[in-house]
Amino acid sequence: MTSDEYRILRETDLRDYLAQLPAIACQLGGAPASWSISEVGDGNLNLVFIVRGGAGSIAVKQALPYVRLVGESWPLPLSRSHYEHLALTHQARLAPGLVPAVLHHDEALALIAMEFLEPHIIMRKGLVGGTTYPRFVDDITTFLARTLFLSSDLAVPAAEKKQGIAAFAGNHALCKITEDLIFTDPYRIVEQNRWTSPWLDTTAARFRGDLDLHVAVSRLKLKFMAAPEALIHGDLHTGSIMVTERETQVIDPEFAFYGPMGFDIGAVIGNLLMGYLASSGHETSPGDRRTFEAWLLETVESVWTEFARKFVELWRTEAKGDGYPPTLFAGANGAARLDAERQAYMAQLFCDTVGFAAAKIIRRILGLAHNIDFELIDDPKRRAICEARSLRLARAMLVDAASFASIGAVTNAAREVRDWDPDFGA
Amino acid sequence: MTSDEYRILRETDLRDYLAQLPAIACQLGGAPASWSISEVGDGNLNLVFIVRGGAGSIAVKQALPYVRLVGESWPLPLSRSHYEHLALTHQARLAPGLVPAVLHHDEALALIAMEFLEPHIIMRKGLVGGTTYPRFVDDITTFLARTLFLSSDLAVPAAEKKQGIAAFAGNHALCKITEDLIFTDPYRIVEQNRWTSPWLDTTAARFRGDLDLHVAVSRLKLKFMAAPEALIHGDLHTGSIMVTERETQVIDPEFAFYGPMGFDIGAVIGNLLMGYLASSGHETSPGDRRTFEAWLLETVESVWTEFARKFVELWRTEAKGDGYPPTLFAGANGAARLDAERQAYMAQLFCDTVGFAAAKIIRRILGLAHNIDFELIDDPKRRAICEARSLRLARAMLVDAASFASIGAVTNAAREVRDWDPDFGA
Repeated sequence: MTSDEYRILRETDLRDYLAQLPAIACQLGGAPASWSISEVGDGNLNLVFIVRGGAGSIAVKQALPYVRLVGESWPLPLSRSHYEHLALTHQARLAPGLVPAVLHHDEALALIAMEFLEPHIIMRKGLVGGTTYPRFVDDITTFLARTLFLSSDLAVPAAEKKQGIAAFAGNHALCKITEDLIFTDPYRIVEQNRWTSPWLDTTAARFRGDLDLHVAVSRLKLKFMAAPEALIHGDLHTGSIMVTERETQVIDPEFAFYGPMGFDIGAVIGNLLMGYLASSGHETSPGDRRTFEAWLLETVESVWTEFARKFVELWRTEAKGDGYPPTLFAGANGAARLDAERQAYMAQLFCDTVGFAAAKIIRRILGLAHNIDFELIDDPKRRAICEARSLRLARAMLVDAASFASIGAVTNAAREVRDWDPDFGA
Repeated sequence: MTSDEYRILRETDLRDYLAQLPAIACQLGGAPASWSISEVGDGNLNLVFIVRGGAGSIAVKQALPYVRLVGESWPLPLSRSHYEHLALTHQARLAPGLVPAVLHHDEALALIAMEFLEPHIIMRKGLVGGTTYPRFVDDITTFLARTLFLSSDLAVPAAEKKQGIAAFAGNHALCKITEDLIFTDPYRIVEQNRWTSPWLDTTAARFRGDLDLHVAVSRLKLKFMAAPEALIHGDLHTGSIMVTERETQVIDPEFAFYGPMGFDIGAVIGNLLMGYLASSGHETSPGDRRTFEAWLLETVESVWTEFARKFVELWRTEAKGDGYPPTLFAGANGAARLDAERQAYMAQLFCDTVGFAAAKIIRRILGLAHNIDFELIDDPKRRAICEARSLRLARAMLVDAASFASIGAVTNAAREVRDWDPDFGA
């Protein structure tokens, strides 16, 4: 039966549930009793099952009514599954082939069954292992440029855009997680914060007293709350990207809402920078990951430049929104002026991106949710060195985003800090 | 009977309709047949009836399914009455005593019955007549500061704010009027544009080719579409304000939605500046309105300074929102830094205000909807002189808003342009 009441699914429940969905059962193949089901969720919020049948496999994601990372003491609405489904189908239209296909959605169970991605792995794991991904830049910049541009006022008539904003406004509990965990908590005393102690104690305390940082992050928070520029993924770190050498898939858009574009682009760039600065912590012999690290910095540069190129190209060809009406920029002079304005627009978006990237780095080192780029560095002092370098870079990017005139300035700063010795004392 | 189907009310329909509403009938007093009913709407969109009974009077506003100024060829959704009612009740809570009390609302009829304001007149008419209003600055700045601050992310938790944005997102048809008539049409050839010809022909053509203007107004348009800073009135010109020497009432918030605060403040200031620059056109002897004009410029200055003072004061005492969390600005240093940031915030808001004020001026001279400040100047050349001065001021404000460092810079520029001779040629 199709349930219309939420319950947390165990493996046997799930088997029964899927068996009565003809399309799913057919795709899996064989007798339901023969399907293998394993719960593999390693994210912070949900259950994720892999179901393998005789003919094929699927992934099933079910939202829990609380934050998995913390437990039942931190409730979280199931409606996030509704928004994830809405975002997934929207992204599939705008950026075909770059998100997993939805096979089934059950609103009451807060459940989405989707294409199982194989042999893809979570990009973050690949980066920890030092793997390069030749398709990544082209795919992620297509995803970013198309999902952001094509949901913005540059592409969409104002009425439709306002309806889109309203459709995602109910996802405020997920936004609130971001507002608190990224833009607020790392900068104040909050019990759930943690960092690599004792090495980062001084830096953490300094960040909690750094009013330049507090002003900068508060400005970004305000922009996050009141700048519905486009339908953003809202959690686009390297743990939300699955990759092979030949494919890239963006998953887990449950934080989606209409927000500032720079938040998504910054998430990608901030997480690549963490991958870069964590890399030396994964060396088995000094310098053995230098080629990988060079690829990562090139990738950071290309993510911005390719994104910007594709975004501006869409603006030239798909500008069907109410922003910058073509009739105000007619003729050769108008076209030239609009092109100059596009560059000014991209410069502002770049500045936002730099700031948001920095905020994403800081929260992963001083806040609640950490990432394996650093966590898998066993020696805590060695980890702390990588983290201290990242914090140093991020602080500069957050407090003085406008001083980074180009993405090359960001990678140069990253390169410099890569060899900086934090000098934790004796 | 209470209708659940929309129909345009004639006077007799309205009498029957009101007679069956006990509270209204009681307030009017006497036999329904004795009530006098007159349609007095002089706005661009709706029917407005004054109903006078033996005991009291009320105003009744009914939305028409089209733009009254243009006719049935320009349909407009009745739902604007829903948003007007929502905004009126919201404003009454935030700024008590500064909006008319709602007595009855009929969603199906798109009808709102409200307190009849007597002996108030539309402020714009008073300004054309050269009347000063001693209460105006204090009242309008209280209205602006309280309605804007108290609906912003500085005062309201993020979830509630997002619900507010969604609640008004359906009012997009009214927003679209603003997007087109204010931010687009005056800068391109559109049949419904008009201006005082032939004197302004050259200026109108120059504005249609002025790419600096087109970039500046397009940036403001984008901000109007994607900066839900607060619940704004959305049409706060001097025709939406009713006054006596002792009272100020803000009416007609049917354009309300979550938008940029500077749009409301700019509307007030832009319309006062038009009153100022139109004033010489209403002289009966040279210079006989100089005292009035001086009051108007003082009023422009005080509207900004008093608004800013009250807004910042609310920020110090009523900051219950998610923006700029107090915990990030603890202690004396934190408090000082937050105060500096408030000033930076107000500087940006001032810059927005200057730009929006300018856009509101230009649309009234080169676009579809004009205003009596200029229209009642009979001699068209004399009118054109006042309008040309206004356009000159507005262009500077729109293209280079950031160069106006203070409201004093704006009034100085207005004073200078007041005596500028446009020199229309022979």
